[in-house]
Amino acid sequence: MRGFSYLKKALHIRSSCSRLLVVSCISSGGLLVYAENVDNNEKIVERSRLDSKKRKKIVVLGTGWAGTSFLKDMDISSYDVEVVSPRNYFAFTPLLPSVTCGTVEARSVVEPVRNIIKKRSGEIQFWEAECLKIDPENHQVICRSTVENLVGENDFSLEYDHLVVAVGAQVNTFNTPGVVEHCHFLKEVEDAQKIRRTVIDCFEKAVLPGLSDEERRTNLHFVIVGGGPTGVEFAAELHDFVHEDLVKLYPSVKDLVKITVIQSGDHILNTFDERISCFAETKFQRDGIEVLTGCRVVRVSEHSVNMKVKSTGEYVVVPHGMVVWSTGVGTRPFVRDFMEEIGQGKRWILATDEWLRVKDCPDVYAIGDCTTVDQRKIMEDISTIFEAADTDRSGTLTIEEFQDVLEDIIIRYPQVELYLKSNHLFQVTELFKDSEGNEREEVDIEGFKLALSHVDSQMKSLPATAQVAAQQGSYLAGCFNRWEQCNANPEGPRLFGSAGRHAFRPFTYRHLGQFAPLGGSKAAAELPGDWVSMGRSTQWLWYSVYASKQVSWRTRILVVWDWTRRYIFGRDSSRI
Amino acid sequence: MRGFSYLKKALHIRSSCSRLLVVSCISSGGLLVYAENVDNNEKIVERSRLDSKKRKKIVVLGTGWAGTSFLKDMDISSYDVEVVSPRNYFAFTPLLPSVTCGTVEARSVVEPVRNIIKKRSGEIQFWEAECLKIDPENHQVICRSTVENLVGENDFSLEYDHLVVAVGAQVNTFNTPGVVEHCHFLKEVEDAQKIRRTVIDCFEKAVLPGLSDEERRTNLHFVIVGGGPTGVEFAAELHDFVHEDLVKLYPSVKDLVKITVIQSGDHILNTFDERISCFAETKFQRDGIEVLTGCRVVRVSEHSVNMKVKSTGEYVVVPHGMVVWSTGVGTRPFVRDFMEEIGQGKRWILATDEWLRVKDCPDVYAIGDCTTVDQRKIMEDISTIFEAADTDRSGTLTIEEFQDVLEDIIIRYPQVELYLKSNHLFQVTELFKDSEGNEREEVDIEGFKLALSHVDSQMKSLPATAQVAAQQGSYLAGCFNRWEQCNANPEGPRLFGSAGRHAFRPFTYRHLGQFAPLGGSKAAAELPGDWVSMGRSTQWLWYSVYASKQVSWRTRILVVWDWTRRYIFGRDSSRI
Repeated sequence: MRGFSYLKKALHIRSSCSRLLVVSCISSGGLLVYAENVDNNEKIVERSRLDSKKRKKIVVLGTGWAGTSFLKDMDISSYDVEVVSPRNYFAFTPLLPSVTCGTVEARSVVEPVRNIIKKRSGEIQFWEAECLKIDPENHQVICRSTVENLVGENDFSLEYDHLVVAVGAQVNTFNTPGVVEHCHFLKEVEDAQKIRRTVIDCFEKAVLPGLSDEERRTNLHFVIVGGGPTGVEFAAELHDFVHEDLVKLYPSVKDLVKITVIQSGDHILNTFDERISCFAETKFQRDGIEVLTGCRVVRVSEHSVNMKVKSTGEYVVVPHGMVVWSTGVGTRPFVRDFMEEIGQGKRWILATDEWLRVKDCPDVYAIGDCTTVDQRKIMEDISTIFEAADTDRSGTLTIEEFQDVLEDIIIRYPQVELYLKSNHLFQVTELFKDSEGNEREEVDIEGFKLALSHVDSQMKSLPATAQVAAQQGSYLAGCFNRWEQCNANPEGPRLFGSAGRHAFRPFTYRHLGQFAPLGGSKAAAELPGDWVSMGRSTQWLWYSVYASKQVSWRTRILVVWDWTRRYIFGRDSSRI
Repeated sequence: MRGFSYLKKALHIRSSCSRLLVVSCISSGGLLVYAENVDNNEKIVERSRLDSKKRKKIVVLGTGWAGTSFLKDMDISSYDVEVVSPRNYFAFTPLLPSVTCGTVEARSVVEPVRNIIKKRSGEIQFWEAECLKIDPENHQVICRSTVENLVGENDFSLEYDHLVVAVGAQVNTFNTPGVVEHCHFLKEVEDAQKIRRTVIDCFEKAVLPGLSDEERRTNLHFVIVGGGPTGVEFAAELHDFVHEDLVKLYPSVKDLVKITVIQSGDHILNTFDERISCFAETKFQRDGIEVLTGCRVVRVSEHSVNMKVKSTGEYVVVPHGMVVWSTGVGTRPFVRDFMEEIGQGKRWILATDEWLRVKDCPDVYAIGDCTTVDQRKIMEDISTIFEAADTDRSGTLTIEEFQDVLEDIIIRYPQVELYLKSNHLFQVTELFKDSEGNEREEVDIEGFKLALSHVDSQMKSLPATAQVAAQQGSYLAGCFNRWEQCNANPEGPRLFGSAGRHAFRPFTYRHLGQFAPLGGSKAAAELPGDWVSMGRSTQWLWYSVYASKQVSWRTRILVVWDWTRRYIFGRDSSRI
């Protein structure tokens, strides 16, 4: 039933009357019967009831994974929501590497924000503009339209009661000279389209009369800096594009093409399970994709990359036709200004607490790649916890007393659960063992500190992925939706320092696994429960997951159609 | 059978072995079973036989309708063919107005040239470059790669035995100030993509907070200069896009949108039948598209268009958000240089004779929009014809003598046939009538001149359309294919000035009709035989014709899919 209601929400049919649509999906062979029956009356009644009291205004900055997931899950019956983003669409970024080579078209991975919020128009408003400045003191944001050559003021300001910052990250060049001027990036749809044109440029230039073989080879050397999932997937896509399509159209230069991945670490895909990174390296070696590990790029110029081999310390110059810089995330300038203003100037990324509230800045929330959750260490609160748990004021904690607060501790400090799991401690009593391993009935404050002293080492910052961003957006929308209810009946963990409870449970991330498509219809996947899957079947799993995760039925059908089209006709090599 | 062999030629399946492909077309419900069985052996044998003698080299400039049609029909077993074009694809330009609004995607109307010539690689070579200069004296062309930032020489020269100039035309601004800076054009795929982005920009800007209604109205005023088929189709597409899709996403400004077509003539679509132009004007009026006829644009600035109303002589200023300049074709600079060099400097467009040979320039041919056929007047040759026809040297021409040469005259001077038809003269004897209408048995030279004196008034230059270009390309390929055969056994009309015949029949254009899609699923069509068709059924005819005219099965299926997708999901409004 969940699938059906989701479908009902997501499918944007172009008329509001009831209609029956039968879409036959060739690829899946599935048949989907869909009936839509919109009844707006209830909504209208509800709204007029709520309009009598002043509605709070939420301003959302950004329409990426975090922002869009927030908007989709937001119950807008009790808030006015305004969205500001320089892009009037949501882009399914995990498919950008596919867009670079035309496996999937750019238009198939984007969905207009106005389509996503259409059924709620009136309550959600969208402005295509960049945020220039957040002014937390006056509760307002200053924005500027990205369209400059039309009449009317470009700048405007919006006031907010709550601000959700979901602006994502920008590329981090680590101040490497020449990167901004000579590298391609892979963060935006436009980046992917530009890469696609440049790949064709390299081939068209390489086949022209009058070039030496060395020049042709240089133009056909594609360098990818960064061996993370994006860089690796792009290398794999490019390899497929070249060997499945381009060699047939440019047969004279087919032996001169070379793809190189430069990785500063010892392995590519080093955030994945070791088996996956090994599988990827072996596959790339077999495919002829060169992987240079332990190399740091120190300069990029128009036709070459300078890098330092870490092991020997020597510098190597590699000529190239195109470089894709696919490593590092950085903070956007206006977010940095905001951080300065609220006293986070020394941090490298905007920090929130576990409820995704920006630290030291009331009514501002931050989700997605632009932020990190600054998790509280249990050791900072250890005395308060001890006091709160020691209900009989005996100066020692019994196992029973500890067990009474344990659930709240685990919710408030998720590192505790990770610690217990990673140390295979299935009974809390085991925490109470002394240094010789003897069980104790009760511990004093020092013993308690000792027992939990290693717990904080389990704290990990969340990766800058679509999955984290989407879960954060969804979590935050849930908090707003249950604002009144949870403030009346708090559902969060108890406040150890004072009486009462937190209104909400803190955000917890649930890792659902990750994929690394490796080209040639093969992929690797890390699934929940330490499962690892590799090969052709994993590629099919990848297809299914990515198709199901699409933001609308429109993009879902377009993406599946693109895969089918690629299979029948190959990828298009027109330079547009 | 013709359909099947065409299919066999056009369908680019990604392997050369036999395979069976079943494509089920949802939209048409049709089922197409296709079996390909390529046998290259015969070709190879033929080629090696011909390689023994020196093969002539044909260089083709341009891959538009003319160039591509030439390449598709060229039998390359006896020539080496090299193609130079700044675009590595063929674009189905009649669908560009549909691309501006996303009814059809840009990628669906382009086919890589290398795909078109793939099966012939080795004989046809393609270089992505612009032609800088034609050097007819040394039989060479100087070209420059359009890719500037890669290693290797950008300029190169190609020698030719025969040169085919098929570079198309560029926009003609008639030196109107501000057009280049502030107008959009609709000649290239990139132009259409840019228009699509700009339309969305206008809407996004118009809904921003802080604009006056007047400013919103200005930004949402779309002006089209030129009421020809392209301008009218774009206006209709834009109207559909706005009213079928955008008003739902930008409801607050839906009453501020305005579309205006400015036409200097008295009617839009004035090259069409009067009924069609009347139908179009009525439909546009009903749709709220303003048509300003008899107005000449004298200046375009960033936010306004100045025009002169011809009837009153007054100047009017119209504020705008976007202007599309869709009138006039001009000669490219390097073609102009070439014209200067060969003594055609005073002409406004490159002239060829009826065999598409550039005048006064041996071995150079010109086809498509960049050229015009400078048809010979019969009055220039009247004495020669009279002498040749007067076989008994009597000083007068009998009807029998005239009838002997009539067929050759009609082939050589096609205006004669047009003249006979348009004056409803079904018998040649009627030409011989004297001024009082009495039939004569024979005429002297003065009488003969008088009889044919009005014939040349029927000469018309061919329109700059895809249809003309494609027929010219095909005609020229046919001439090259039958070069030896026709030089041995000429098939053209007799040479009146000397003995013998022309090797080939001159090019004749066969008008197959033209369409004007008018939006709202309605189109108008002028069909051969002065048939006129208007309405919904004509739109379906338009769909069928445009689908069937696609250059490959890939683009055909993509275009039909796009139409289906538009029908189900509407047009995408993402600004990418």
